[in-house]
Amino acid sequence: MALIVQKYGGTSVGTPERIKNVAQRVARFQAEGHQVVVVVSAMSGETNRLIALTKEITSAPTPRELDVVVSTGEQVTIGLLCMALHGADVQAKSYTGGQVRILTDSAHTKARILSIDEANMRRDLDAGNVVVVAGFQGVDEDGNITTLGRGGSDTTAVALAAALQADECQIYTDVDGVYTTDPRIVPEARKLDKITFEEMLEMASLGSKVLQIRSVEFAGKYKVKLRVLSSFEDGGEGTLITVEEEDNMEQPIISGIAFNRDEAKLTVLGVPDKPGIAYQILGPIADANIDVDMIIQNVGHDGMTDFSCTVSRGDYDKAVAVLEKSREHIGARSIEGDRSMAKVSIVGVGMRSHPGVASKMFRTLAEEGINIQMISTSEIKISVVIDEKYLELAVRVLHRAFGLDEAAA
Amino acid sequence: MALIVQKYGGTSVGTPERIKNVAQRVARFQAEGHQVVVVVSAMSGETNRLIALTKEITSAPTPRELDVVVSTGEQVTIGLLCMALHGADVQAKSYTGGQVRILTDSAHTKARILSIDEANMRRDLDAGNVVVVAGFQGVDEDGNITTLGRGGSDTTAVALAAALQADECQIYTDVDGVYTTDPRIVPEARKLDKITFEEMLEMASLGSKVLQIRSVEFAGKYKVKLRVLSSFEDGGEGTLITVEEEDNMEQPIISGIAFNRDEAKLTVLGVPDKPGIAYQILGPIADANIDVDMIIQNVGHDGMTDFSCTVSRGDYDKAVAVLEKSREHIGARSIEGDRSMAKVSIVGVGMRSHPGVASKMFRTLAEEGINIQMISTSEIKISVVIDEKYLELAVRVLHRAFGLDEAAA
Repeated sequence: MALIVQKYGGTSVGTPERIKNVAQRVARFQAEGHQVVVVVSAMSGETNRLIALTKEITSAPTPRELDVVVSTGEQVTIGLLCMALHGADVQAKSYTGGQVRILTDSAHTKARILSIDEANMRRDLDAGNVVVVAGFQGVDEDGNITTLGRGGSDTTAVALAAALQADECQIYTDVDGVYTTDPRIVPEARKLDKITFEEMLEMASLGSKVLQIRSVEFAGKYKVKLRVLSSFEDGGEGTLITVEEEDNMEQPIISGIAFNRDEAKLTVLGVPDKPGIAYQILGPIADANIDVDMIIQNVGHDGMTDFSCTVSRGDYDKAVAVLEKSREHIGARSIEGDRSMAKVSIVGVGMRSHPGVASKMFRTLAEEGINIQMISTSEIKISVVIDEKYLELAVRVLHRAFGLDEAAA
Repeated sequence: MALIVQKYGGTSVGTPERIKNVAQRVARFQAEGHQVVVVVSAMSGETNRLIALTKEITSAPTPRELDVVVSTGEQVTIGLLCMALHGADVQAKSYTGGQVRILTDSAHTKARILSIDEANMRRDLDAGNVVVVAGFQGVDEDGNITTLGRGGSDTTAVALAAALQADECQIYTDVDGVYTTDPRIVPEARKLDKITFEEMLEMASLGSKVLQIRSVEFAGKYKVKLRVLSSFEDGGEGTLITVEEEDNMEQPIISGIAFNRDEAKLTVLGVPDKPGIAYQILGPIADANIDVDMIIQNVGHDGMTDFSCTVSRGDYDKAVAVLEKSREHIGARSIEGDRSMAKVSIVGVGMRSHPGVASKMFRTLAEEGINIQMISTSEIKISVVIDEKYLELAVRVLHRAFGLDEAAA
């Protein structure tokens, strides 16, 4: 007998029919003798419907009240799923975030989980119940309803698995696992049986939207065995996200190719090359609540340097305005930018022990005439920023060059 | 400065635009120096939408989970109304039933309020907040979400007014007060400025759907000053529901005419006239969860009697089946019934001190050739059951006969 936490996203519970299918799947797991905790999202479209409603009231909804409104989406799903389980003769009990008590900080709309009281869930599991928990939500110390932000249901599932020391946390989604890259771009992309947490983090943060990044961090930190599976197929093994690296000579160097289309590049030219300049440039951008992704400062010459960064495309105009405002104060010559950029990254723990991965990547792109505009590396990934129009081509040639097209070993 | 509890029903908060109108009204009350607690229902149609969703899952939703689902309707409204108040520069804070803590028993879908913790609301009011509370819901001792049943938001409002010792509890609805009878049937019907709790109870229970009956009981018990007003008109005084009887010689004998179209009559003929027979007849009906309204047992002769009762039309077939089943055991001759009945009642505390009210009622109906099939009386009302086809005629002639058509004194 195992204790399994299963998470079903908005698409998997998108209609009453699908909720009944989830109930059938959960029932089978319980019939096999497992204890099951189910975490659910709002039915697909529901969160957007609620947010649209708030927009009709005000353009700037109060965060506390926004949480009160949107948290109802998951609350509806837990009730419906429990009814469906009862209809399938399975004992089940629903919990809102507050009822579990998933204690969070008070940062409404993006709260972080502080602690989970697992006593009630444990009692109900031992009494033969399936426990159904609303994802994405909690309460702060004063009993205010909080939400963890979009995709937070994954984090709820992993946090519950950690608190309950579950044997496995299964994330059911509309894909059957993590792929070497997006199959819509590279039809030869193949499903990975395993991937390490570090690789998954890089894949997720770079735009492979299978799992919410915070949930992967959480799972890595608390050593929760995490598995991504399809909720629309039965019997698949999905992709297991593990702590252990494969100790296998045959292991591919690169596990996957991640990419992000939503990039814009900003360059501050002719910046005095002196201490504190990075802060002078980035400080006002951070103050304007703009997330900066890649940051590159070139080696200076003649006391001057250039400074580049990337931001989300939606933040581009705001970022340009902020930089123009501080340009004179900084003493920079000019601001340049381009909103049509894309980022492509190769990810793999294998590159740690294989020199020459970067040069192979750059050569591959050069052979196709793709100009690299920015480069950033970490231990297990290499990212390049290129003109967006080359994105698909770059992903395809890299996928082939690093042997990801071939059948899994 | 007064402390006012205001309740807005589903129609009054039916759209974002209407929610903003409610916010404006609340803002005006606060600007006048009042402390305001607002109780809201789900946006009109929302509760039905949620119930329809559960019906797609199962024909028999579990009561506990039904409460989890439907209670989200009011939760959405409190968040939206607070946002609208913030947009109007009014400090406001929302409370779910559980957050107030409105403690109820555990009778899901029809819970009763046991106690209300008013400390947090009081603190927020004193800090200058409008307090916005979700109607219709509470929590039981184990933290399970409960609902008070349809119309329960009125009860929430009155219970909060009692707990906070509010100066007035205002029920905003889509009518501008309580009328002598339904103006759709008698165009001459006029709005009452005042009505006693007892009269209101009779009016409400007899089909005048302005206020939920439990809320009126509650208000009477805790001496809460209750006022019914229109949320679509400004400046109206509505109808005040008071404890005091008018000490006025000019007071009309009858305050209003209530009626109910949804009646069916059942008669058990030839029942042995012996102790315990009423229980033998009504016991199985109660066991089948059928609410019996009027009960009449005629004086027996030759050791036999007839026994009649009325039930909701929707319960008629079930009630007949139950009676047929126990007929032989009871020793009754036969079961008769008619599902096309209506009940008309004249209500007024004035009849206590005016003899001849009943005979005037019966004569008025007789003059129109309307046959009375059953009669039931209480201290302040007389009800008759008649053929449904005479309903409108009966209401009109009684309205005229008791002087209700005239302009208010």
